[in-house]
Amino acid sequence: MKSDLLSNIYNPADLRLLKEEQLTQVAQELRQFIIDVVSVKEGHLGASLGVVELTIALHYVFNTPEDLLVWDVGHQAYGHKILTERRENFYTNRQLDGISGFPKRAESVYDTFGVGHSSTSISAALGMAIASKLKGDLDKEHIAVIGDASIASGMAFEGLNHAGVTDANILVILNDNAIGIDPSVGALKKYLTAVKNGKNPRQNNIIKSLNFDYSGPIDGHDLPKLIKELNRLKKIKGPKFLHIVTIKGKGLQQAEENQVKYHAPGKFDASTGEIHLKSEENLPPKYQDVFGLTILDLAKKNEKIIGITPAMPSGSSLKFMMDELPERAFDVGIAEQHAVTLAAGMATQDMIIYCNIYSTFLQRAYDQVIHDVALQDLPVIFCLDRAGLVGEDGATHHGVFDIAYLRSIPNMMIYAPLNEIELQNILYTVQLELNHPIAIRYPRGRGVIPNWEVENFRHYEKIKIGEAKCLKDGTKIAVLSAGTIGNNVIEALKDSTNSETIAHYNFSFIKPLDINTLETIFSTFKHIITIEDGVKNGGFGSAILEFAASNNFKNEIEIMGVPDEFIEHGTVNQLQQICKVDVKSLVNLFSNRSK
Amino acid sequence: MKSDLLSNIYNPADLRLLKEEQLTQVAQELRQFIIDVVSVKEGHLGASLGVVELTIALHYVFNTPEDLLVWDVGHQAYGHKILTERRENFYTNRQLDGISGFPKRAESVYDTFGVGHSSTSISAALGMAIASKLKGDLDKEHIAVIGDASIASGMAFEGLNHAGVTDANILVILNDNAIGIDPSVGALKKYLTAVKNGKNPRQNNIIKSLNFDYSGPIDGHDLPKLIKELNRLKKIKGPKFLHIVTIKGKGLQQAEENQVKYHAPGKFDASTGEIHLKSEENLPPKYQDVFGLTILDLAKKNEKIIGITPAMPSGSSLKFMMDELPERAFDVGIAEQHAVTLAAGMATQDMIIYCNIYSTFLQRAYDQVIHDVALQDLPVIFCLDRAGLVGEDGATHHGVFDIAYLRSIPNMMIYAPLNEIELQNILYTVQLELNHPIAIRYPRGRGVIPNWEVENFRHYEKIKIGEAKCLKDGTKIAVLSAGTIGNNVIEALKDSTNSETIAHYNFSFIKPLDINTLETIFSTFKHIITIEDGVKNGGFGSAILEFAASNNFKNEIEIMGVPDEFIEHGTVNQLQQICKVDVKSLVNLFSNRSK
Repeated sequence: MKSDLLSNIYNPADLRLLKEEQLTQVAQELRQFIIDVVSVKEGHLGASLGVVELTIALHYVFNTPEDLLVWDVGHQAYGHKILTERRENFYTNRQLDGISGFPKRAESVYDTFGVGHSSTSISAALGMAIASKLKGDLDKEHIAVIGDASIASGMAFEGLNHAGVTDANILVILNDNAIGIDPSVGALKKYLTAVKNGKNPRQNNIIKSLNFDYSGPIDGHDLPKLIKELNRLKKIKGPKFLHIVTIKGKGLQQAEENQVKYHAPGKFDASTGEIHLKSEENLPPKYQDVFGLTILDLAKKNEKIIGITPAMPSGSSLKFMMDELPERAFDVGIAEQHAVTLAAGMATQDMIIYCNIYSTFLQRAYDQVIHDVALQDLPVIFCLDRAGLVGEDGATHHGVFDIAYLRSIPNMMIYAPLNEIELQNILYTVQLELNHPIAIRYPRGRGVIPNWEVENFRHYEKIKIGEAKCLKDGTKIAVLSAGTIGNNVIEALKDSTNSETIAHYNFSFIKPLDINTLETIFSTFKHIITIEDGVKNGGFGSAILEFAASNNFKNEIEIMGVPDEFIEHGTVNQLQQICKVDVKSLVNLFSNRSK
Repeated sequence: MKSDLLSNIYNPADLRLLKEEQLTQVAQELRQFIIDVVSVKEGHLGASLGVVELTIALHYVFNTPEDLLVWDVGHQAYGHKILTERRENFYTNRQLDGISGFPKRAESVYDTFGVGHSSTSISAALGMAIASKLKGDLDKEHIAVIGDASIASGMAFEGLNHAGVTDANILVILNDNAIGIDPSVGALKKYLTAVKNGKNPRQNNIIKSLNFDYSGPIDGHDLPKLIKELNRLKKIKGPKFLHIVTIKGKGLQQAEENQVKYHAPGKFDASTGEIHLKSEENLPPKYQDVFGLTILDLAKKNEKIIGITPAMPSGSSLKFMMDELPERAFDVGIAEQHAVTLAAGMATQDMIIYCNIYSTFLQRAYDQVIHDVALQDLPVIFCLDRAGLVGEDGATHHGVFDIAYLRSIPNMMIYAPLNEIELQNILYTVQLELNHPIAIRYPRGRGVIPNWEVENFRHYEKIKIGEAKCLKDGTKIAVLSAGTIGNNVIEALKDSTNSETIAHYNFSFIKPLDINTLETIFSTFKHIITIEDGVKNGGFGSAILEFAASNNFKNEIEIMGVPDEFIEHGTVNQLQQICKVDVKSLVNLFSNRSK
């Protein structure tokens, strides 16, 4: 590469000083910059590579940040960040105190709307557009860039349905690459594919039916064409829709060819694309794989078992079942609401449904959990992956609210396994007999039992509903932990002074609570400490307080967990430190309290 | 009317014994039966009158309950209930221990899926259809009947998007009457209207694009045509879609002409349709009108104010503002998710947004509240009408979870006014300056201050954020109430023995809590009683327990509110009795505790 253009671009104003002919070189440099940094620092790769040209064209044609640009989900916004004053900090991406992996208002005026969860961009941009109109800013453009997986989610349809009857200046750009994290699914995807293949005449168009000025599909890697079309659209008022076709991972051959793996590939060789494989020998398994392999094993033996994932077959490891038993394992796309009520419908017909949804995404289906499942007391099994602090994905993705928002729902049971064995056994137990809905929450990442695969499936043990277990005896203090955070307690107790005075109880069942064990605990120990990987307001500790109040116990109760603030990104351990539930903090706490 | 056919129909098997020519008479009798009962017993009228022919045709053609029929929302299912073994109990509709106003699984095998909230029917029916297929029931039909307002909600789109790529036996019937509770809105509605007017050739069809076998539009009051078409569709496998056109309120002239009013008209004259007006003189105002009139007044003085309702302009009384300031008041249709993120988008542009959503429906936008509003700390004002127990609409509609599900969200403030004055003043206060999102929750029905209109608007008073108020002094016991349930406390204290020992504090601010006042209370009173119109698990009382635990107070704390079970339908007072927060129960409680 000859002269370096990118290093002279601090923000889009600099970009706009270049001649259009120079932009192809900018694209090349930007793509290489993303590859160079992500190959070393990790992060999301394929999505940003796919929109390099679009990113440049948007900032070149439109007057950002005056014109307002909203990226849906935000996996694809690395190029945007680099072109908007964050090139030099980009190496801190997703690290504690570094820049966020997603657009974030607090970080830059160019990040007009914080994202992370999908399908919000049309509503947000429309809100901005209506506000601009009311303020008399009639020339401002408001742009939502949304992928074909995200536009198929109900919320995006709601945004389109409203935008189509306004005269607001909104430009929706459909970045159609036929994939989200996993390949897109559904009837709309099928339709869009037909459009791309020229099988649908333009005038016969869903988007036009919704009253948009539709153009496309055009090649999203053709910079001159993109710029020409955006310049044309810039002059048109009201709701507009541009359909562009791109390739996820564009420019790195391996990323283009293996789009699922290169969504977030970890460290890799920047020149060859080769992923640096870490040895997995002796590592404990990922919880998602414990789920994925266990449900497959159970489903082979029990014909009533069905698996559902909204767009996370790889992330949830439901793909194992989808590969072997495709007729009973469903990826329904980014459609959490539908996923939950679909599960409820199946449950009325006596099927056994494992509905696997990341904890943070179940927020999208909260009403369906209450109204369609719990109110009818249908025994749907919710498997909440990525519960608790998730690390580098940050504030939008932490699964820390689930205990609080599920605990107030009648009929709902909540189970948080301590480890892989408990996860496996609860998955086994709930398909034997289940009279109520249950949420099984487990974290991102790996468990604590090396060589789990070998031990696996030798036998399942039935778990007694509502039973807590004493893991360690003590005399003065009882620590009550819920879920895998209990492993921090186990570790911490090894290093705490006077740890012989501290008992440890594992409350995998957060609801129903083990009342008998609680009565013993409250009668035995003066001081109670609860520990959870979730918000303290309304969470597990709060449930213990309610028990104590209604039984007139006056013990001292101390609640540890996520405080009443949004926790940002960093490693899980760093974030646990912030919340004071990491091993070291717990050693200090236990040592202090047992003095 | 000659021979009475309806009284010989116990269930659909009896209906199927009739000749097709007799069904017109059945329709006439069924319509009259609905009018006769609802005119006296109250309930939802217009929706059921509109689907009399469809209801008869469905049960005549299909083999219910073997074929599975799901009614979306359920307002329209009175005819269905009457034809399915509940004619003789229909007079108990919506009464305590009577039949539910909505389809409900526990009530009848013909009610295949409980409903109340909209847009669930396609997902539920698809779940049933997939289950049937897996079980080898290849001839079973699975039918979702959904209105044009409900099908525009995102969740319905998610269901269609999935169903279109399956080969499940699902028949979606779009009951297109261009109205929900209020007239339908949005681009899809505009499109459907064009279809009905013959302006879109059939082959150019959104539904066909989603891979459905589409037929229609046909006249939904033409019984022979309906039966013929349903018989044809019965033989077709896979996903099918029938578009029928009906008139809400069909058969009662006034209901046809004034569809909003006759959605649920109260008591009326069965022969003339004339509504029996109750005198409103000296009655306190409805809380919804306090909201509607106050926001209108404020918006006239403050140009930044915007109002949003998802499909409840009448129910929320935002219609006052929509009539006078249409450019700043938006009905976005049944699209709670979109409504919240639209509000967030507007708030980024410094507008002041009052987003009015019934408490129970905000469950639909829980993720958007967390992810798009609270995480970005945008000062959106959520006005949660119908908070607490709502009475006759029952379990699907009680707004009892909001305190628990909102309290765990960082940055979120929660205010529950004691009465009309507090509601008015908080609405005034939050538009002066607001640094965080706030939820203002108030109940269905009327307040406690007669002639509020006269007093109204004389002056607004600014409310101090986070302040609790002592309403009555005492010596031994402190009662802490949140919101309008405090009026029950005020009443009860008048009749309680030893009430001089009982203090009463009004905690309108549920979050942030008034820490100073709490410290005074906990230092002064041995016994604390909290009272709220919401679930006890994780609610206001729980927040008080958390305060006490973290400040090491050992007072006795008793929590009153909605227990951990779904509360059914009945009058608000009857339901408060079940939860022991009605005036009489509180008199007993206070008298006992103050002994």
